[in-house]
Amino acid sequence: MLTPWYITGLVEGEGCFSISFTLRKRLSVGIEVRPSFSLSLNKRDLKLLKEVQAYFSCGGIRFSRSDGTYKYEVRSLQSLVEKIIPHFGRYPLQGSKAGDFERFSQICQMMRANLHLSRKHLPRIIELAYGMNPSGQRRYSKEFLLQVLDGEKG
Amino acid sequence: MLTPWYITGLVEGEGCFSISFTLRKRLSVGIEVRPSFSLSLNKRDLKLLKEVQAYFSCGGIRFSRSDGTYKYEVRSLQSLVEKIIPHFGRYPLQGSKAGDFERFSQICQMMRANLHLSRKHLPRIIELAYGMNPSGQRRYSKEFLLQVLDGEKG
Repeated sequence: MLTPWYITGLVEGEGCFSISFTLRKRLSVGIEVRPSFSLSLNKRDLKLLKEVQAYFSCGGIRFSRSDGTYKYEVRSLQSLVEKIIPHFGRYPLQGSKAGDFERFSQICQMMRANLHLSRKHLPRIIELAYGMNPSGQRRYSKEFLLQVLDGEKG
Repeated sequence: MLTPWYITGLVEGEGCFSISFTLRKRLSVGIEVRPSFSLSLNKRDLKLLKEVQAYFSCGGIRFSRSDGTYKYEVRSLQSLVEKIIPHFGRYPLQGSKAGDFERFSQICQMMRANLHLSRKHLPRIIELAYGMNPSGQRRYSKEFLLQVLDGEKG
């Protein structure tokens, strides 16, 4: 069985907390918010990834042909709030990823309170998300999303 | 202060145990063996890397302009044998990197006994080293090094 601090160390290097946004006309705010926690490892470490999955008792594993890695991923808000986030509360990240985690945790708590469906609170979620993972690629700029939200007000 | 298992988890993802070979005419076996333990992190995690360095009380840190990372590296055989290897004996790697570490540890112990300077034992070191890090790039093929060694016998 993996130890909690080992999991935190592994995630410090290879884990990713991310919030993605998709345009959805059927939503009254026009934008869907999707949180994800993932951990990608070389294909020779599938067994280890399964142990991480067993440790958290949630999430799925899939193979990425493009880069020869397996990715463990948790998308369920309930699992994120009840299993993933409490782990990193007790065994905190020690590097710069701790800042990403703090924002991620705040956003998930706001989503738990359904604030991502509110025109008043969604800008704060967008603001927090765009302060995460500075090296990551985004489909939409922050300004574009805020404009979409403004448009939906009319 | 970082915890031991956290260090092991971080190294599982981002660490590297490697053995490199260089042709050296001044050595009677013609080949120099150089072990290295390293850990590379994005430049925003220099502080974390310094904490790892403090944990192990050895090694140096340098910046790699090519990929924007800082690399913590230990090359001293004495530090490897007395500080790095014992850590991973007590707090073992859990994934496929454990196999690399086992080979690395064996080679360092052999070097400690000066077997890398012996024509009889160097082929075994080369054999062990070429079973490590299957995705890594090598300047020389294993066959070429063994030929060099054979040539030195004449």
